[in-house]
Amino acid sequence: MEKHAETQYPVNDLLRRRWSPRAFAARPVEREKLLSLLEAARWAPSSNNEQPWVFLVATADNPEGFQRMLSSLVDANVAWAQHAPVLMLSVARRNFERSGKPNRHAFYDVGQAATNLSIEATALGLAVHQMAGIHPDKAREVFGIPDDCDAVTALAIGYPGDPGLLPEELRKRELAPRTRKPLESFVFDGRWGEASPLLSKKS
Amino acid sequence: MEKHAETQYPVNDLLRRRWSPRAFAARPVEREKLLSLLEAARWAPSSNNEQPWVFLVATADNPEGFQRMLSSLVDANVAWAQHAPVLMLSVARRNFERSGKPNRHAFYDVGQAATNLSIEATALGLAVHQMAGIHPDKAREVFGIPDDCDAVTALAIGYPGDPGLLPEELRKRELAPRTRKPLESFVFDGRWGEASPLLSKKS
Repeated sequence: MEKHAETQYPVNDLLRRRWSPRAFAARPVEREKLLSLLEAARWAPSSNNEQPWVFLVATADNPEGFQRMLSSLVDANVAWAQHAPVLMLSVARRNFERSGKPNRHAFYDVGQAATNLSIEATALGLAVHQMAGIHPDKAREVFGIPDDCDAVTALAIGYPGDPGLLPEELRKRELAPRTRKPLESFVFDGRWGEASPLLSKKS
Repeated sequence: MEKHAETQYPVNDLLRRRWSPRAFAARPVEREKLLSLLEAARWAPSSNNEQPWVFLVATADNPEGFQRMLSSLVDANVAWAQHAPVLMLSVARRNFERSGKPNRHAFYDVGQAATNLSIEATALGLAVHQMAGIHPDKAREVFGIPDDCDAVTALAIGYPGDPGLLPEELRKRELAPRTRKPLESFVFDGRWGEASPLLSKKS
């Protein structure tokens, strides 16, 4: 299933096609493709080129590791994510490695790496559904995540599957139109709350 | 100037070509292209579809607004970013609009929107250089950013320019090879610090 963004202005095809399904095919993801996803994450930009991201990876063909990953997700996500062939956990190093000082942009940069990964997935015919709903303390315990790092999100990864196999409530959400706030609500000019003149046809 | 990522595993062309130059051409950026960049940001995924991002936009053809934006950057960034034709400031809403509760993923999701914007820029022949080096308090003052929002990064945007016009120190950095940590240092399997078997040739 595809679910393209209904854009107000054109955007390139990879960004238009990227979305976050809950239905995944059982088909495993080729090792080469997973490596390309991680390589894409690797080349994200970051503050001071700190690269504050770590990715923990679990594939369904390793049931023990996969269960450990599932134990870090909230139940509402386990319900569908358990059927994805690959799960990852993104982790942020909170401090700069060189100075030990707090990195204000650690989460921001992990988000950049996750987006790169998701866009590469789209390019390879895969889909990624990121989840905020995780148990960071549980993840720390089961994976041995150090004190100066925090689990940030989980990522379900796989080939798109059949929405018909989802429970009814999730199936409805899967088939509902995608929505976003209008540009006027978040693109401002010289002053907070004043829509940018870029957005008016006359400019 | 182009500066492709030297990848260990293949990634799609947009991600490979994206990089963060400091040399921009004086040429203005077409309004339609800026709208596509913002539209790309708009379609980033976010926790609960909260879309916690705001972008403040300044173009060089509005000197007063452009100076205000420059006043929010640290001096080391003003040195080169003053020559970009477009500057933006990304801002995060720290709390969920519906509940008022803290959004742990606000910065992460603003990072996702900024990456989408940067990749759309690459697709349109533009380049984006994101900056962590800003004065968030100064930005709050000059743009009237509310208390429950924080300036996160600045973005310099334009067509690639001539590195020869940069001061010597910056020119060296512009021409230096791009570097990233190896995958082995941040892709772990069941346990923190243990490189994923995906990365070993035998798996």
